[in-house]
Amino acid sequence: MSEIESGALDLEFILDEANKQQKPELRLWLRMLSTTKLISQEIRRRLRAEFSATLPQFDLLAQLYREPDGLRLGELSKRTMVTNGNVTGLVERLEQDGLVKRETPDGDRRVTVARLTERGTEYFSAMAEAHERWLKDLMADVDHATVDTMLTDVNRLKKSAGNHLSGS
Amino acid sequence: MSEIESGALDLEFILDEANKQQKPELRLWLRMLSTTKLISQEIRRRLRAEFSATLPQFDLLAQLYREPDGLRLGELSKRTMVTNGNVTGLVERLEQDGLVKRETPDGDRRVTVARLTERGTEYFSAMAEAHERWLKDLMADVDHATVDTMLTDVNRLKKSAGNHLSGS
Repeated sequence: MSEIESGALDLEFILDEANKQQKPELRLWLRMLSTTKLISQEIRRRLRAEFSATLPQFDLLAQLYREPDGLRLGELSKRTMVTNGNVTGLVERLEQDGLVKRETPDGDRRVTVARLTERGTEYFSAMAEAHERWLKDLMADVDHATVDTMLTDVNRLKKSAGNHLSGS
Repeated sequence: MSEIESGALDLEFILDEANKQQKPELRLWLRMLSTTKLISQEIRRRLRAEFSATLPQFDLLAQLYREPDGLRLGELSKRTMVTNGNVTGLVERLEQDGLVKRETPDGDRRVTVARLTERGTEYFSAMAEAHERWLKDLMADVDHATVDTMLTDVNRLKKSAGNHLSGS
């Protein structure tokens, strides 16, 4: 399930007054978590209000949007991190809404592929456009130069983390 | 449940070549999501490897650590975003491990409070210390000045988002 927003660990209390100026990496991590949590919650709220959609639905439609020929349900489950059982339910619901259709290509009944209908494609395009607009809106008080700096810095952080994974 | 890591929307495909230089806010958001996902997964892996612990357990112990007098299970559920039913299971498991104990203060049997044992306190201290060390490690290739800049910039972003929530 798409549960980005939940469980952003509330650990700020570890940072007592004496430590406010120390532990910058921990502070940065906690601040990134609480920020992504805040923004994810807001996106979730707007998806519901403007599209009567949930984040898992958005996620699923997004995956189908990039695969015009459709995706097997198992593959869809993997890419969205929605469990197999839930993918079936989600797809059924979206099918009822006319956004998705299920097909058995080559008449092989063991294989079910889901793909967007024309209406589903239009619907997701509108969602993606709104999603981008919301982010601009939420970042409206951050000047362009800062956004650019952050893009570079977050990338640096991601690379650093990638270089220090346990397996590597 | 603490499912920070899962469901970081994989939407980078929205950014086709022609748009690479545009949509900076969307790009920043997707990059922040994928970075927090990467780091969360790594923290989850290390918690398991070094403490045989899960993120929800860590989260729950953290909440109890800050409340020496203990917390009611309902409150614990709210603060950790673990569902009521799951909190009971988590607490039972931690009680078996000798890290948590349940009490009924004032002999009121309707109220169950969970709190850390001495061993639980020591255990969580060690986890929190390791957690901080892991973050330093994962951010090792990011120089101090960049970490400081990011602290300021992420804060600016968080404030901007806070200023533009639907309800406000």
